[in-house]
Amino acid sequence: MDYYPEHWDRSMWEQDAKLMRETGVSLIRVAEFAWSRLEPKEGHYDFGWLDDAIGTFHRHGIQVVIGTPTCTPPNWLVKKCPDVLPRDAQLHPHYPGIRGHRCYNSPSMRHYSARIVEKLALHYKDHPAVIGWQIDNEFSLHECNCDQCNEKFRSWLKARYSSVEAVNAAWGTVVWSGEYSDWSEITTPLGGTRWKNPSFLLDYKRFETDSVVEFQQMQVDILKKHCPHHFVTHNIWSYPMSLDYYKLCKNLDFVSLDYYPSTSPEKDVTSGYSGALTLDLSRGIKRRNFWIMETLSGSPGCWMPVWRAPYPGFIRAVSWQSIARGADTIVHFRWRSAPSGAEQFWHGILDHSNVPGRRFEEYRGLCAEVRRLAPHLEGTQVKGEAVILHSHEQYNAFQAQYQSDGFNYFDNIKAVHRAFTKLGIMTDVLNEHEDLSGYKLIVVPSLFLLDPELAGKLEGYVRNGATLVILPRTGVKTRTNLCWIRPLPGPLAETAGVMVAEYDPIGKETNSIRWNGKTYSCNQWCDILTPQGAEPAAWYEKEFYAGQAAATVHALGSGKVWYIGTFPEEQFYLDFFKQAADELGLFYFPDLPEGVQISIRSKGGKRYLFILNFSRRQQTVRIGQSYRSLLRDGPVAPELDMNPYDVEILELSR
Amino acid sequence: MDYYPEHWDRSMWEQDAKLMRETGVSLIRVAEFAWSRLEPKEGHYDFGWLDDAIGTFHRHGIQVVIGTPTCTPPNWLVKKCPDVLPRDAQLHPHYPGIRGHRCYNSPSMRHYSARIVEKLALHYKDHPAVIGWQIDNEFSLHECNCDQCNEKFRSWLKARYSSVEAVNAAWGTVVWSGEYSDWSEITTPLGGTRWKNPSFLLDYKRFETDSVVEFQQMQVDILKKHCPHHFVTHNIWSYPMSLDYYKLCKNLDFVSLDYYPSTSPEKDVTSGYSGALTLDLSRGIKRRNFWIMETLSGSPGCWMPVWRAPYPGFIRAVSWQSIARGADTIVHFRWRSAPSGAEQFWHGILDHSNVPGRRFEEYRGLCAEVRRLAPHLEGTQVKGEAVILHSHEQYNAFQAQYQSDGFNYFDNIKAVHRAFTKLGIMTDVLNEHEDLSGYKLIVVPSLFLLDPELAGKLEGYVRNGATLVILPRTGVKTRTNLCWIRPLPGPLAETAGVMVAEYDPIGKETNSIRWNGKTYSCNQWCDILTPQGAEPAAWYEKEFYAGQAAATVHALGSGKVWYIGTFPEEQFYLDFFKQAADELGLFYFPDLPEGVQISIRSKGGKRYLFILNFSRRQQTVRIGQSYRSLLRDGPVAPELDMNPYDVEILELSR
Amino acid sequence: MDYYPEHWDRSMWEQDAKLMRETGVSLIRVAEFAWSRLEPKEGHYDFGWLDDAIGTFHRHGIQVVIGTPTCTPPNWLVKKCPDVLPRDAQLHPHYPGIRGHRCYNSPSMRHYSARIVEKLALHYKDHPAVIGWQIDNEFSLHECNCDQCNEKFRSWLKARYSSVEAVNAAWGTVVWSGEYSDWSEITTPLGGTRWKNPSFLLDYKRFETDSVVEFQQMQVDILKKHCPHHFVTHNIWSYPMSLDYYKLCKNLDFVSLDYYPSTSPEKDVTSGYSGALTLDLSRGIKRRNFWIMETLSGSPGCWMPVWRAPYPGFIRAVSWQSIARGADTIVHFRWRSAPSGAEQFWHGILDHSNVPGRRFEEYRGLCAEVRRLAPHLEGTQVKGEAVILHSHEQYNAFQAQYQSDGFNYFDNIKAVHRAFTKLGIMTDVLNEHEDLSGYKLIVVPSLFLLDPELAGKLEGYVRNGATLVILPRTGVKTRTNLCWIRPLPGPLAETAGVMVAEYDPIGKETNSIRWNGKTYSCNQWCDILTPQGAEPAAWYEKEFYAGQAAATVHALGSGKVWYIGTFPEEQFYLDFFKQAADELGLFYFPDLPEGVQISIRSKGGKRYLFILNFSRRQQTVRIGQSYRSLLRDGPVAPELDMNPYDVEILELSR
Repeated sequence: MDYYPEHWDRSMWEQDAKLMRETGVSLIRVAEFAWSRLEPKEGHYDFGWLDDAIGTFHRHGIQVVIGTPTCTPPNWLVKKCPDVLPRDAQLHPHYPGIRGHRCYNSPSMRHYSARIVEKLALHYKDHPAVIGWQIDNEFSLHECNCDQCNEKFRSWLKARYSSVEAVNAAWGTVVWSGEYSDWSEITTPLGGTRWKNPSFLLDYKRFETDSVVEFQQMQVDILKKHCPHHFVTHNIWSYPMSLDYYKLCKNLDFVSLDYYPSTSPEKDVTSGYSGALTLDLSRGIKRRNFWIMETLSGSPGCWMPVWRAPYPGFIRAVSWQSIARGADTIVHFRWRSAPSGAEQFWHGILDHSNVPGRRFEEYRGLCAEVRRLAPHLEGTQVKGEAVILHSHEQYNAFQAQYQSDGFNYFDNIKAVHRAFTKLGIMTDVLNEHEDLSGYKLIVVPSLFLLDPELAGKLEGYVRNGATLVILPRTGVKTRTNLCWIRPLPGPLAETAGVMVAEYDPIGKETNSIRWNGKTYSCNQWCDILTPQGAEPAAWYEKEFYAGQAAATVHALGSGKVWYIGTFPEEQFYLDFFKQAADELGLFYFPDLPEGVQISIRSKGGKRYLFILNFSRRQQTVRIGQSYRSLLRDGPVAPELDMNPYDVEILELSR
Repeated sequence: MDYYPEHWDRSMWEQDAKLMRETGVSLIRVAEFAWSRLEPKEGHYDFGWLDDAIGTFHRHGIQVVIGTPTCTPPNWLVKKCPDVLPRDAQLHPHYPGIRGHRCYNSPSMRHYSARIVEKLALHYKDHPAVIGWQIDNEFSLHECNCDQCNEKFRSWLKARYSSVEAVNAAWGTVVWSGEYSDWSEITTPLGGTRWKNPSFLLDYKRFETDSVVEFQQMQVDILKKHCPHHFVTHNIWSYPMSLDYYKLCKNLDFVSLDYYPSTSPEKDVTSGYSGALTLDLSRGIKRRNFWIMETLSGSPGCWMPVWRAPYPGFIRAVSWQSIARGADTIVHFRWRSAPSGAEQFWHGILDHSNVPGRRFEEYRGLCAEVRRLAPHLEGTQVKGEAVILHSHEQYNAFQAQYQSDGFNYFDNIKAVHRAFTKLGIMTDVLNEHEDLSGYKLIVVPSLFLLDPELAGKLEGYVRNGATLVILPRTGVKTRTNLCWIRPLPGPLAETAGVMVAEYDPIGKETNSIRWNGKTYSCNQWCDILTPQGAEPAAWYEKEFYAGQAAATVHALGSGKVWYIGTFPEEQFYLDFFKQAADELGLFYFPDLPEGVQISIRSKGGKRYLFILNFSRRQQTVRIGQSYRSLLRDGPVAPELDMNPYDVEILELSR
Repeated sequence: MDYYPEHWDRSMWEQDAKLMRETGVSLIRVAEFAWSRLEPKEGHYDFGWLDDAIGTFHRHGIQVVIGTPTCTPPNWLVKKCPDVLPRDAQLHPHYPGIRGHRCYNSPSMRHYSARIVEKLALHYKDHPAVIGWQIDNEFSLHECNCDQCNEKFRSWLKARYSSVEAVNAAWGTVVWSGEYSDWSEITTPLGGTRWKNPSFLLDYKRFETDSVVEFQQMQVDILKKHCPHHFVTHNIWSYPMSLDYYKLCKNLDFVSLDYYPSTSPEKDVTSGYSGALTLDLSRGIKRRNFWIMETLSGSPGCWMPVWRAPYPGFIRAVSWQSIARGADTIVHFRWRSAPSGAEQFWHGILDHSNVPGRRFEEYRGLCAEVRRLAPHLEGTQVKGEAVILHSHEQYNAFQAQYQSDGFNYFDNIKAVHRAFTKLGIMTDVLNEHEDLSGYKLIVVPSLFLLDPELAGKLEGYVRNGATLVILPRTGVKTRTNLCWIRPLPGPLAETAGVMVAEYDPIGKETNSIRWNGKTYSCNQWCDILTPQGAEPAAWYEKEFYAGQAAATVHALGSGKVWYIGTFPEEQFYLDFFKQAADELGLFYFPDLPEGVQISIRSKGGKRYLFILNFSRRQQTVRIGQSYRSLLRDGPVAPELDMNPYDVEILELSR
């Protein structure tokens, strides 16, 4: 449970701790955001109240994760050191309002953050209840333009490029007289026009990620120094995201995710699939299990209209979905809705009324189940057979430049992942720099930035037997966001055995392609293909390029490379991946009902099949034979009837 | 008539005065906005032109209201004292453009305003034509963040809360380290994020209202000192509005309203109902008759596309509607469309052409009618049997925080008022702090902020026989915008005998409720009710809470309390209020045609029934018997045929 | 070809020049935007690379136009002299991003611009390949508010009005105390509200145009001084535009246009008509032939989603359309897509791949055709029989003030011009100040600002036999944007013999009119007409003014004046202009298929008819007899079958 003792009268701590313990809560996260209470005036520390609060929960056997409060510099600090505040492209300060009003590169921010973190570390390093730390809260990029950020950006560039001439070359600044004659001329992206040199913008995003990483590392170092036996993590927000989570999480013990799937009836089914991707992405960051540090306890609100009431079973299903895809701990946000401040309507498990209700009862049941099943699941892991590449860098590059109307890098990943999920194919979603050895099926959706090294690695997997599926807008750019002066898909052209002769950015209009005797609609983009070694495999049906190749397949070594020159409708992906799964011998479910998701956790010989009905309809899942259900503690029929948001966990083997 | 002599060549004054007199105009408002002409340079006053203009109209027997020109500080003042200009959340000045470029707290603005107002007061205090004053023009909140506003905001808080600790407690600043350790850390809501602590935002709005009131009071004091026999008023703009009109109008002699109902054919019927609410609200501010200081003379424009030409009869109908609901004087804006400046296309009774046309003839007829009927209507008043509570504070609180998609505090008041108007039930719309004794039916739409004192008063009315109808989002907050830690509807829960167990913010989706054997759709919000003493009276028909209570009724003393847990369609209100009117013995019209409005003005035994056809169709109104029409000066049939925008005024008794 | 040697490795110049020559390219434009390469540091000039590049192309017989690089002040200049940057209404600098980050009035900008232009002029004045200059790039108004612009704006006003009192009178500043008591109080339009005095705003636009003209003239003077045998031009962007192109182009040798018609299938037909207007407007600026300095070579992108691939034949058709309407030279933008910078996806004839493709082949064919036909077309001109008036001043005045919802000055011109184009009536589009003697049919769409002089000239053309067609919102304002105090259409009321009694701004709603026995829908605006000498000719069919006059015709001298009081659907224009053409003996095509455009170029007895099928369907054009086709070099049948985007050029006589 996320719990904020400072929000409540002291008299409520005891009863809250007691009720939590009875409910089955084993851990709370505290102190995140509490800087003004921990250091009410500069240099005056007051940890007594937190000692008391932690002590109360400790007495009830509840463990504690402490959040460092650096997301919310207090007013005295802002007033004393205005350099704490980020500055936008017109140098306007981002004044305190809710939270996040801090420049990662501000010297004052660094100084005072280090001091409060060290004080906390020294104070709690030996507390028996405290097991670990969360740094700050939901880091993101600010696009700060303060003097310090400008200075550090120049230093960052010096370290990367050594000379101004090298910057000019890497960014191609010669266009429109953007060349720099001296380091001092380089600034962060200031106001006036949203359009800038895309190479510059991409490096600025890299610099910004590195600024966050540095700010976090300062805290990691302090915590690891004083609390060597505590874990250190950070709670990431969701996807898509400009901040590079792969870099951010490198030096953390594990990844934590804040996970809030939509409660909207309209997103009934789709939010479950989006959530599956988010969870697979989170597991993929460090390629191992992770925590949920915040998740849905009631309707979120405040930054948008209050969401619909969670459907009965939804809160439970979301937790089991998280576990199914690799979460080892689930922390719910939050115990009780905030009585004050701008987030009053982001609802907790308890409403403001403090009267336990329907959601609380559902949560209580969940706690009991989890406690019962934990021994079985302890140490189990999730592993995919297919892999989809993902990259914040590609996302950032696409954010800086329009492709076609409706082209959306992340949505295209979603579409591929959703098809895999509907087929029940276990899928990992990994950074493009990861070692992909062992995956039979590799999908690369728009590797816009592509260097020969990565292209070579991908070709290597193919030659060793993998099937590689390439989507459009791949191989367009170098790593510094210059266009390759060579036919598309650039460094992968020979591997794919194909050349993009021309393209038609059809946007939200549709064309259609013919594949395997069926017609599929497509949109966003149409690469018109000239096979150069590959075989044409699908053909356009409309426009002046009707009859020309829309997809090709190229046998290479013991694998093959598909180039799909457009973004087809989902049915294409379903048919295509089914065929690929048959060829490659991947495990899949041919007829999962709409909304039903499966996942497998395993360890040694133990394999547990999670089945979740993420829909508001009764669904029947054909699992072929009878298995033992961990939840029911008994066998279930081969035709499994599932209620809305119902969950099953079946023992495939032990 | 609103008349701007300074806009016209002197040679036109005489002919304008003459034509006005012939037309029946008895009063003009002048000098509002004319500061640069009255004080062309600092300390150089020139009232001669205004003397001449007023003299001209006086000769034609026309009285004069003078507007103080403080809405438009002249350029010399802005240049000399830039502190006159309001500053936005990033401290950018709001430069002169059209008008309203003045900070209410600016010391320069206060100084120069006091001086020009005093000069005017001394100059015109004994002028035989001058009868009163309008202060400034259409006050509204600026959200100014200048140094002076910051300083005064802190003083305002000191006066209200005494200590920084008390501010922290009242606002719940502990959330996100927003605690203040010193007064100097408190600022107005500066930029960076639109989201801030809602308690802070609400107090800032209160401070802003108080700043306007103080600025106005300075002028009231000067005028009352020098011109004790003149009235002082202010022309308020329409609703909804953040500025608290109840506070603003407290020390004025009467309220004046600027009233511009839509001429759009699509808003044909609805604009008449919205207008009825605006007029009832205006009458309710001081609970007595009021003035219209500006009203539609032709198509408004300039800040939006020019409106449709007013339909024949519309200008007349609007005036009679105003009178029907409590206006004692109608001043039309404006005599002739402005030849220059940014408001050229806000049309007057005369177009730029200066050729009297269709609208002028309609106005001439109206003047004649009004003169003829005035002796009958003199001293008559309007009084409702039902009352709807309204509050700028509630509006401001809702503005600071989303509820559900489509939830709109003011529109919900509109819906209730429209139902009353369609039923012909005379309704007052009053501030929540008013004494409501004597009303049989009290509707409280979303008393978001609710203290036990007000809850107690409401309960008192019920115990004395009133029926109280409560809508959702009532009793959520304390007066400092913190959430009550108790079941909803908070301080009214026991009075209503009900607890909101949970809610579903359905927004623009719909559910339906079953009441009295009929089904009604509803939207925005669904409170799921647990009766605690009350009887369930309506039930939801859809969603996981189908069958649970959507409305309850609680007998208490000699009255009863309805809690309606959702926002139903209009037909519900019509059926529900009809039933309530039957129970309570309220006068109503069971079958008024769409768009037809009625109102009663009375004095002693005299009662006049106004019937207005606010639609573009011929309508038949069944009034049950024959009455004498003041307009036709003769009897009308019990089945009254009314042309589009036609008006009848019937003598119910004398 | 637009070519940027600095974007490419030197090793590519030779092959590019060679391929261009083989393809038929005879001229390149260079150096535009290359300031940072020409003057890498203050005062350090490096023209060697440009000498080499120009030398390479010269060796291949290709001529050169040099662009002055003043659109892109380099970073060293921005850093040294921040006054170079324009400042917005809140005085925020417009920092470098892409291009155009220069204040036309900045003293530093003027100084450094003059210097680089002079250096270039002196260096290339005798180069045998260099034939002329393009100044800067696509000038537009910045709305700069820097100190220098403020100072110069006041000087500009002093020169125009002599006294502050005269400014007050001309602008009608008395409204809302906007009067100035001293020059120092006058500023450019600073922030706070988008609404300002429209007279002030219009003069500010005039001042801004004059600032651009002055900045350009400085360069013209230098170039003309040193390079008396070179031409000087500027490449204008498209329409509508606030910058007054008539003033801008006055001292240039000829107009150049950047022409990018839409490739969208949805705008298939309409973009051809819009393009025809753009070309006719460009020809009308100096009433003679012009250049295309940039035109479509592939899909534009970057500031919007990448456009659709140009349909086969489209690039060729666009060039022939340009020639048909008066272009004497076509320069394509650009040879190869940019490898870096923010415009990477504005595609060239060659893609980044540098592999010649479909578009390149189409371009090669076009070059061959043009070379073959050039001797025939040399010296031929285009001349219209009808004329439409156009004015940036009217456009600017309408931009400052809403009329009705959907009212659009430029779209209304488009609608009239499209009707003429569909009828094959040769039309000129000229500034209102031009001498219109000789035109039989003159259409004035919304001469909002109208002085008696222009009204008198128009009446003169009518008395001499012309037919004048007036659309609504004519004669509303004086030249300083004050409303005329006289009936509409103001100074043309007597000429038209009609008075606008009232108007209904119907916006996007529709009414209909009856003319010549047929009904036509209309929208935007309805003037209700009172004939005063004219004959009613059309009548409204709906609303309270049904049956009243919607159009009138007034015989005057040997001509006639039509007043059309509304904006009718296209069919009205087609029927109306056909009737007018019959009456006036204008040449027209009664049955051109949708999308087919014609134009005639002639010289002495030679007349060439261009027929273009701007649609994606096969069309049959009936030309009445067989003519010789220049393209086919042989006769074509009287029934001409044309493929999509096909072109014919027929010899009508020699």
